[in-house]
Amino acid sequence: MTRQTFELLILGSSSASPTSERHPSAQLLNIAERYFLIDCGEGTQMQLRKCKAKFQAIDHIFISHLHGDHFFGLPGLLSSMHLLGRRQEITIYCPKELKGLMDLINKVSETTFTYTVNWKFTSNEGLSLLFEDDKVQVYSFPLRHRIYCTGFLFCEKPLPRKIDKYQLDKNEISTSEILKLKKGMDVENEHGILIKNAEVTIDPAPPRSYAYCSDTIYNPAICEFVKGVDLLYHESTFLDDHLPRAKKTFHSTAKQAAQIALEANAKKLLLGHFSARYGHLENFIEEASTIFNNCELAIDGKKIKI
Amino acid sequence: MTRQTFELLILGSSSASPTSERHPSAQLLNIAERYFLIDCGEGTQMQLRKCKAKFQAIDHIFISHLHGDHFFGLPGLLSSMHLLGRRQEITIYCPKELKGLMDLINKVSETTFTYTVNWKFTSNEGLSLLFEDDKVQVYSFPLRHRIYCTGFLFCEKPLPRKIDKYQLDKNEISTSEILKLKKGMDVENEHGILIKNAEVTIDPAPPRSYAYCSDTIYNPAICEFVKGVDLLYHESTFLDDHLPRAKKTFHSTAKQAAQIALEANAKKLLLGHFSARYGHLENFIEEASTIFNNCELAIDGKKIKI
Repeated sequence: MTRQTFELLILGSSSASPTSERHPSAQLLNIAERYFLIDCGEGTQMQLRKCKAKFQAIDHIFISHLHGDHFFGLPGLLSSMHLLGRRQEITIYCPKELKGLMDLINKVSETTFTYTVNWKFTSNEGLSLLFEDDKVQVYSFPLRHRIYCTGFLFCEKPLPRKIDKYQLDKNEISTSEILKLKKGMDVENEHGILIKNAEVTIDPAPPRSYAYCSDTIYNPAICEFVKGVDLLYHESTFLDDHLPRAKKTFHSTAKQAAQIALEANAKKLLLGHFSARYGHLENFIEEASTIFNNCELAIDGKKIKI
Repeated sequence: MTRQTFELLILGSSSASPTSERHPSAQLLNIAERYFLIDCGEGTQMQLRKCKAKFQAIDHIFISHLHGDHFFGLPGLLSSMHLLGRRQEITIYCPKELKGLMDLINKVSETTFTYTVNWKFTSNEGLSLLFEDDKVQVYSFPLRHRIYCTGFLFCEKPLPRKIDKYQLDKNEISTSEILKLKKGMDVENEHGILIKNAEVTIDPAPPRSYAYCSDTIYNPAICEFVKGVDLLYHESTFLDDHLPRAKKTFHSTAKQAAQIALEANAKKLLLGHFSARYGHLENFIEEASTIFNNCELAIDGKKIKI
């Protein structure tokens, strides 16, 4: 059996000023066919089309903060969903000021969407559960930027235990008991004999996780929220040559992102939010790799399996 | 002597829903090195970069109406101008509600621009002068759409009369009199003899004009405002097969745009604002050409000399 999907699509990897190659921040995360849009910079709807992503399958949008390069694509995306006749409701997790802004936009354009928008406002008090269903949990956690900003943590729920079919037959267990076994319970076989769960099941693959650390100054306090994640996205707006500018603007360098990945014991680091001043990005990998040895660049259009 | 520039760059030619090929409405008009941005759909700043257009040379932005596909690129463009340290002031000609919206966007993102934005609100009472300098006049005029909407008319001012150098020498006129001659005045020559202007000057090229008819239902009342323009942009969201839908949504078909061009005695018709349902656009030219015989398609990235 193949594992359920856990895949990230990079829609934009630029910082505030886009370049002709790089769009502002946006990512689409697919966990078990739940589509989570993370930030929504200008042009996100065009990027979704270009990447042939399932536009209307997005039911949850997460906005880290209200600098334009992280949300100026939202009005256009919501508007296109409306024009395409969407009926399915959508939930937006964001700083509270965004709702008033979207209300005003719809007022001046005299628009009433064909679907319901649910608003859930993030808080910056520790790890805070935003969304949960049978397969996924999503949390926000505080980041330190010039304005209110949160990161997001996406966690697969533990998968059911795997049935060992050979042992199932050998122990003469009826198939009606499979659900209990998957949950980790012991069962009785067809002759009323107790069979220990461990004898007929095997451990499932461990649950996977992805953390999105949007705009932030270097801040080791993040590590407790993202400890042990399979993939850590951490902004690296600058290289080490612009460390003073990174500090001043509450951004991070590639080395600082790598330091967080190291301290958090992340399995892999994804670098992004590159300043427009950098044409080639190889130096980001080079600098980060001096500290943490499993790094990758966020490139517009790239898919990353987790 | 070459004539002063009068050139239009198409940045977006799509209607409300962009496609992977066509961006929402935006055009950049250069008249004698004055850069006028006309509408500013999502992605305009990326399109400007892709077309290598002079980003910071834009001092005047004209917004026809407040449907998102005509202004959702404005916050990002203004923000990028700010991030690039612009000092030169900019003037935005638009429906009055846009100012409050931009103020709110800057409030939630805690941004104060490095430059001044002047706001001039359009009115829909006939032909109304919005801007004038020594070379150009710009007017707004009312369109009939679902919400308040205006078109824009850009007119070159009459050029100075051309000096006939041979006659200048022959009549022994001092070069200090040239300015008067260019203005059409008669002058005295070096011997105090009156020389008629017509004897030493020739007619300049006639002034050129461009009219932008953004979203509108078919409305012959437009013709009086755009009479005789060199280039008429008229939206043609639909082909004739969707005439009822055009009426219902207060849009026009290619044939209706051509009818306006014919009645207004325009020299050339530019079709745009194509619905995303149409992949190929040849039929727009074909249908319009049954009524008016000098038609062109607005294609993203195309430059049109007027």
